[in-house]
Amino acid sequence: MDKFMQAAIEEAQQGLAEGGIPIGSVLVHNNKIIGRGHNRRVQKGSPILHGEMDAFENAGRQSAQTYREAIIYTTLSPCAMCSGAIILYGVSHVVIGENHTFLGEEALLKSKGISVEVLQNRQCIDLMQNFISSKPQLWNEDIGE
Amino acid sequence: MDKFMQAAIEEAQQGLAEGGIPIGSVLVHNNKIIGRGHNRRVQKGSPILHGEMDAFENAGRQSAQTYREAIIYTTLSPCAMCSGAIILYGVSHVVIGENHTFLGEEALLKSKGISVEVLQNRQCIDLMQNFISSKPQLWNEDIGE
Repeated sequence: MDKFMQAAIEEAQQGLAEGGIPIGSVLVHNNKIIGRGHNRRVQKGSPILHGEMDAFENAGRQSAQTYREAIIYTTLSPCAMCSGAIILYGVSHVVIGENHTFLGEEALLKSKGISVEVLQNRQCIDLMQNFISSKPQLWNEDIGE
Repeated sequence: MDKFMQAAIEEAQQGLAEGGIPIGSVLVHNNKIIGRGHNRRVQKGSPILHGEMDAFENAGRQSAQTYREAIIYTTLSPCAMCSGAIILYGVSHVVIGENHTFLGEEALLKSKGISVEVLQNRQCIDLMQNFISSKPQLWNEDIGE
């Protein structure tokens, strides 16, 4: 598998091991990871640290050019907030582990000229399906439901 | 002036005093502020802590019902990321200090059934115009340009 999606999955697994929601993400520029993260709702009591947001945060302040040349990998289709961050910074390409358990704002991303690739990766689907079965309330909270 | 917009302006002024970008926000539920914040790009080296995001973060984890009954006040029209967070949590009403210096994703918010009110407040406009004149690069960075 793509090494960057593998890194995002490792982030998701780390989140799960911490008692959190298993969604991970990496931000890649020039074939190098410049930020990696995972959902930290439980770990930090944070409503804004979705996996993608955590990857942006951990990448720190980057130039507009860096963002535009970057690719973001995420194990799950990005919600409105994470899609908004991707749009704000004009990240050119989004690689998504799966959108089977949750379909985020992919249409909005595409409408802004951002290319979107969905892998429907079995490992990503299993991570989410097992998690949603075991902690449905936590999952609903994470998507504002 | 509305006491909640006044509180958002005080947050913006605090950010400015800290050397940061003067945008503030408060999240209000049942006529009480449950989270307040300001842009902390400079202060925390954060690309995700816009004013609205900081207010959400400082409110901590809230129920879906609380978000839906909440109103968010922000001194400046919310960008794609902050609008996305508002959409994710289904905040019903957004009060905006001004959209004269920057027009965010108000159309997107409205398309999701969220009501948007723009005050074109002179104090908010002056805060941003003075800031953009003095630190244009920092402002461009904040909006991914």
